[in-house]
Amino acid sequence: MTPAPRIDALQYCAWSEASFAAMAAGGLDAVHATLAYHEGFREAVGQLEAWHRRFREHAHRIRPGRRASDIAAAKASGRTAIFLGFQTPAPLEDDPGLLEVWKDLGLSFCQISYNRQSLLASGWTESTDGGLTLMGREAVAEMNRLGIVVDLSHAGERSALEAIEASERPVAATHANPRRWRDTGRNVGDAVIEALAETGGMLGLSLYPHHLSGGSDCTLEAFSAMAAGLAERHGAGFLGIGSDLCTGQPDSVVDWMRRGRWRAAGDRTPMARFPDQPAWFRDASHFSHIGQGLRDVGFSETEVAGVLGGNWARFLDAALEPEA
Amino acid sequence: MTPAPRIDALQYCAWSEASFAAMAAGGLDAVHATLAYHEGFREAVGQLEAWHRRFREHAHRIRPGRRASDIAAAKASGRTAIFLGFQTPAPLEDDPGLLEVWKDLGLSFCQISYNRQSLLASGWTESTDGGLTLMGREAVAEMNRLGIVVDLSHAGERSALEAIEASERPVAATHANPRRWRDTGRNVGDAVIEALAETGGMLGLSLYPHHLSGGSDCTLEAFSAMAAGLAERHGAGFLGIGSDLCTGQPDSVVDWMRRGRWRAAGDRTPMARFPDQPAWFRDASHFSHIGQGLRDVGFSETEVAGVLGGNWARFLDAALEPEA
Repeated sequence: MTPAPRIDALQYCAWSEASFAAMAAGGLDAVHATLAYHEGFREAVGQLEAWHRRFREHAHRIRPGRRASDIAAAKASGRTAIFLGFQTPAPLEDDPGLLEVWKDLGLSFCQISYNRQSLLASGWTESTDGGLTLMGREAVAEMNRLGIVVDLSHAGERSALEAIEASERPVAATHANPRRWRDTGRNVGDAVIEALAETGGMLGLSLYPHHLSGGSDCTLEAFSAMAAGLAERHGAGFLGIGSDLCTGQPDSVVDWMRRGRWRAAGDRTPMARFPDQPAWFRDASHFSHIGQGLRDVGFSETEVAGVLGGNWARFLDAALEPEA
Repeated sequence: MTPAPRIDALQYCAWSEASFAAMAAGGLDAVHATLAYHEGFREAVGQLEAWHRRFREHAHRIRPGRRASDIAAAKASGRTAIFLGFQTPAPLEDDPGLLEVWKDLGLSFCQISYNRQSLLASGWTESTDGGLTLMGREAVAEMNRLGIVVDLSHAGERSALEAIEASERPVAATHANPRRWRDTGRNVGDAVIEALAETGGMLGLSLYPHHLSGGSDCTLEAFSAMAAGLAERHGAGFLGIGSDLCTGQPDSVVDWMRRGRWRAAGDRTPMARFPDQPAWFRDASHFSHIGQGLRDVGFSETEVAGVLGGNWARFLDAALEPEA
């Protein structure tokens, strides 16, 4: 029997030979890499061109990922399949018709909102979450039709629940932890977790310190115990990893992620900085540490294989195929 | 004493020598013309270039309007001052910083939303109105600072009320009628009307048939009686005209106005069409008919002069000046 693939459902590293070598060292067969945050259509196409160059220049390490079979193909050739996604729907501008264009261009994941309001839904930092907008409902239907994963990671709670309800396919929070473990609106509440688990969706557990109980000091044991609690309540089959790893990025990048093109006039907070990664997950080469942590809190080998990638692979096998 | 200027606070005609001649025949000293609906930044700049050409080619009819003194200058030279505005905040894309760029380029009015959700606020057709977003609050503050009129004409009710509350300057619904007269979410409810009247804001009464009781068959008497009712309840000083006149536009234009770049997949409705204008307001040359109608229902000459333009002129005198 072929071992299950290893998949990380979110990274946004400063892409380089070193970052791709770390994927290989971590045994990663597939990674969901962020293609764009706040870029409009044309700028996001520019980011795609940068990936085209990377696929040529690092062809011994990476290959494009568009459907689940690309994961096995990458594994067979000792490489990592890179699946592309948007953290905000900004590259759709005001036109859900661009989703079909983006699917042709290789898009696999699309968040309905980042931290603020988008044209599709509310982000978790808005004081009011109005839920899915008219364009949001249209975009979810279009993603369903095309086989693009609806990603809720940064959405407000009402928007997330409405997207799960509106979507005819299971959806995912590719990189988020339970709010009951680390209480931040950026993590997901019980209602969203339950709805994901019950509908065949996926939750990619995050290794980003602001999503971890204890932050940078979070231990592997505590992280694994959190995963065990989820598995106990909902089963382990909807769990994966979405590390949210940003290795090698300067702090200006996280400031831009948070603020997009603007900062409120009254905002005197200093530039946002990247927190230190926990010692046991400094970069993608540490991926296998997670497996050991899960084993130590009682996950079976089959469950570990599922959480490290088998569950994502099964999910993507259905999620990325266009409707017949 | 110089007679008050005549002002129409919203037109989107197929601009031509004929449409500018109609402004002159109607005695209009100033018109708020829509610069852009669903255009992004660069496309809206293209629309601005088209206005630059029009200002050269029709220099005997029109001149740019940027501040209230341009109205008197236009009147003195027998021309119409054209003030530019956005019907949606699409040309701001995701960046309130573009408002200062647009003010420099001559923008005088900006709607916080059109019919659907924008990044600033909800439009009246959304099932949920989440109110002003984080970017909406920032944009309102920036419009206040720069002297750009916050326009609520197509906003949802909660968004409109929150914008009035958030704005440090009086705001306007440049083209809308009372919902209690013609019951459509596109018109404004009593709460918004009261808030506009109490805060020094403006309501531009619309001559667009879908906003009129009786539609295309609405009589001048009925329209004038509606205005009289408003004046009785709130005084006549906050009333102006915003005709929403679209003379000469093909039906494809109203279809595009409504749907922007997309139409819902399940939407089988036929292409939207422009309704016929009432016989007494076919085009801008009929502007003086409104004055007669108002006189006939008891408006004084001073009040008529205010509604036909004096009130807008007074409002714009303060509204378009940047903060010191």
